[in-house]
Amino acid sequence: MSNDASIGIFDSGFGGLTVMRAIRQVLPHENIIYFGDTARVPYGSKSPETIFRYTLENSAFLVDQGIKVLVIACHTACSIAFNEIKKMSKVPIIGVLLPAVEEVVKQTKKGSVAILGTRATISSGVYQEEISKRLPQAEIMSISCPLLVPLVEEGYIEHPVSELIIQEYLRPLRHKPIDTLLLACTHYPLLFTTIQKILGEEVTLIDPAASCADYVKDLLTKKNLLNPQNDTPNYQFYVSDDPEKFRLLGKTFLNYPIEYIISKPV
Amino acid sequence: MSNDASIGIFDSGFGGLTVMRAIRQVLPHENIIYFGDTARVPYGSKSPETIFRYTLENSAFLVDQGIKVLVIACHTACSIAFNEIKKMSKVPIIGVLLPAVEEVVKQTKKGSVAILGTRATISSGVYQEEISKRLPQAEIMSISCPLLVPLVEEGYIEHPVSELIIQEYLRPLRHKPIDTLLLACTHYPLLFTTIQKILGEEVTLIDPAASCADYVKDLLTKKNLLNPQNDTPNYQFYVSDDPEKFRLLGKTFLNYPIEYIISKPV
Repeated sequence: MSNDASIGIFDSGFGGLTVMRAIRQVLPHENIIYFGDTARVPYGSKSPETIFRYTLENSAFLVDQGIKVLVIACHTACSIAFNEIKKMSKVPIIGVLLPAVEEVVKQTKKGSVAILGTRATISSGVYQEEISKRLPQAEIMSISCPLLVPLVEEGYIEHPVSELIIQEYLRPLRHKPIDTLLLACTHYPLLFTTIQKILGEEVTLIDPAASCADYVKDLLTKKNLLNPQNDTPNYQFYVSDDPEKFRLLGKTFLNYPIEYIISKPV
Repeated sequence: MSNDASIGIFDSGFGGLTVMRAIRQVLPHENIIYFGDTARVPYGSKSPETIFRYTLENSAFLVDQGIKVLVIACHTACSIAFNEIKKMSKVPIIGVLLPAVEEVVKQTKKGSVAILGTRATISSGVYQEEISKRLPQAEIMSISCPLLVPLVEEGYIEHPVSELIIQEYLRPLRHKPIDTLLLACTHYPLLFTTIQKILGEEVTLIDPAASCADYVKDLLTKKNLLNPQNDTPNYQFYVSDDPEKFRLLGKTFLNYPIEYIISKPV
């Protein structure tokens, strides 16, 4: 594996660009190939079998591009498929799941935690299980928030409608105070301000993108796979639908202009 | 083509069951095969190319089952693909689009009309064009409502959140009174009560399912293809993902229990 090979990032759509943004910050010289499955988004409302199949297909596509590490940026895909795909993968693989779990364990003071995720992520029970393994006394509340992905995809960021929906989802926390909340979906950090406003400053919100990026950096360092070149890195974007919409919305997530997008039907 | 062959109904998900319900009412002895593309839903936020490809694949699947007529119950699929697929189809084909347009023309008194649809339906401009052809003086306002499908799919029927989002979408109508509103998406009739409450009783809301069912009856009658048998009809359901969720949610749309569902991955 050559050091200038790319990092491959897979997500169901735009959301994973928040993870790519964090990776760019800690690894500014790495080449990156991003694949967003915009023709089949959202994953979170689909069945485990279908999510597994889509994740497998898309991971194989990225591995075929000659990447040196695969990052599964989609929490739904990780919850359902990470362990199985790790067993099969020819390249090292990192998911957002474990960095997220470890960040929760590091940040929580009282072990009173809430997890927000898609229906598939929450139903899988994987986050709850992994946190409980590390913090057996933790009190964990899991809330599935199926409308938040469409809200973000439609640009309802700081909007009264989003606030009302989030208030509704967070209602169970009124009578069960928490100290830490995990945003276990790459779209949710876009609603950070609204969620923080509703919960108050005393609750720590965790966006695992930065921890995931640190994981990627550690892995490449250990395996001696860092790209030593100081050239401008090469970013390639593949989407299964609507490159133009990806270009327009994507820059909000990536905080960087997206120039070259290749259409890859699924 | 034998008279006991089935009517084939295609939709991107659950919504088309409202059309199936209307068809059952006027044609209680017809056998029906329904296909819901639940693995790739929603269509309304995807590109015309992808919507066309999905519609073509799913129409071909139903035609291969030996159906005597194909009903495209999805407004998004109709707006993008109906004319092309009609040219290619080996069986007669009916879409929800024209029955909807003709119902608008019949119902409107002042020609002041609004159309609610998905982003793809509204961007296609097809409804606007077809109404204008028949009513050149009509004033037509088109509003894309991308959050309504996720709201309905998540069961937010008579709910304050739905009301707030619909109020937001209908805001442009405050200063531009209309007499007729077309619900140009099979999911929207589930929000009928809320929409009517916001607009007031003086606005006629059009759910084109019944007109579409009349179209199907007329076509089968003209072509001498009605099923004369008085046996209990046979209903077959195919979905591309999560038959169990389809069974649970589907009965709300169909108003009839759904028993036999076949998984058909895409």
